[in-house]
Amino acid sequence: MSGYEFDDATAEEIEAESATYGPIAHATRRLADLSIRTQVSSEAAARAHEHLEAAIALLETDLADGPYGLKHSSLGITRAWGNAVVGLRNPIAPPLNIVHGDGMVWSDFALTAAYEGPPSLVHGGVSALILDQLLGEAASAAGKPGMTGTLTLRYRRATPLGALRAEARVDRAEGIKTYVVGHIADAEGVCVEAEGVFILPRWARGEETPERFE
Amino acid sequence: MSGYEFDDATAEEIEAESATYGPIAHATRRLADLSIRTQVSSEAAARAHEHLEAAIALLETDLADGPYGLKHSSLGITRAWGNAVVGLRNPIAPPLNIVHGDGMVWSDFALTAAYEGPPSLVHGGVSALILDQLLGEAASAAGKPGMTGTLTLRYRRATPLGALRAEARVDRAEGIKTYVVGHIADAEGVCVEAEGVFILPRWARGEETPERFE
Repeated sequence: MSGYEFDDATAEEIEAESATYGPIAHATRRLADLSIRTQVSSEAAARAHEHLEAAIALLETDLADGPYGLKHSSLGITRAWGNAVVGLRNPIAPPLNIVHGDGMVWSDFALTAAYEGPPSLVHGGVSALILDQLLGEAASAAGKPGMTGTLTLRYRRATPLGALRAEARVDRAEGIKTYVVGHIADAEGVCVEAEGVFILPRWARGEETPERFE
Repeated sequence: MSGYEFDDATAEEIEAESATYGPIAHATRRLADLSIRTQVSSEAAARAHEHLEAAIALLETDLADGPYGLKHSSLGITRAWGNAVVGLRNPIAPPLNIVHGDGMVWSDFALTAAYEGPPSLVHGGVSALILDQLLGEAASAAGKPGMTGTLTLRYRRATPLGALRAEARVDRAEGIKTYVVGHIADAEGVCVEAEGVFILPRWARGEETPERFE
């Protein structure tokens, strides 16, 4: 599939990429919040807009043809830096730092005004976005990588914007299906529960007999 | 609940808000794409970053305390301009233009590199985000507004980045539960199916007897 790329980036080159473009993503995240909340005069907004257009003109002079994809280096480092939830270079991503350990994965994060659905609350679909990523990483961490087959969300109560924690772990595996459960919680407890079924891709199934191997 | 605001904005004031701040959101959406795809030199990236910081300094001098919420004007216009899927002022939102008609709602839209999950594909959680919004609007359009109770996604096949169409309609209502179905499709057909159960809020249930009215 296009977008899976094996590059020979050195540790220094990977660090340089982060140092060069990371601040652009970080500033753009801040701008996403300000775009919603600013109340400055039309004159100040117009001056800010000129700065944004100047930045666009600089950045668009040399662009990759397509989306970021996944870049694997010979060092064993995989960069999913365009990912909509965890991507270092993706301003739409909060981005989540997902921690692995004790048979589960988790993340402590905060959501700003840009993730709003109902007033003052996290958009139900944003919770789904975050849980899809977290459940998928839990499956991968358990040696069962896969694409999402089904995802079911149960909204127990409203999820406030602000500080949140998400957790996920594999519940069971049945053949090529891995069942993963997780939730998002605030300080008062669980807000959203999720169950996902992830389908093990053919390359990970260990079906080495030639007639079934693809 | 905080965030529901009735303002007395005139049509001219609403148009001025859109004209003043809409370009900031539009440029920030473009920056989200460039942040992922740019390959310019570290010098050019540093100059672009200076422009972004200058814009931030201008915009943050006068900020609303909280997220955008929902603003209702006496004209009957409701602004959900901070919404993560449809918000005019939210750079995270593509934003979707959702059309109502023929007993359903639909939207034609395009997703860029910022919505990527697996290489060259839409993040499964982004599909969930969009479908949650669309199903909720279908429920509202049928006179059954509500918060999402459950949402189930079935990923039939990979969803490519690029031009897509989403549709949703109410399947049936049972008491306070409204069952809504929908999907996202590309030119080849359906990629993701969704079913959502939306819970009618107390204020919309028509329970006018004082002891049950909240």
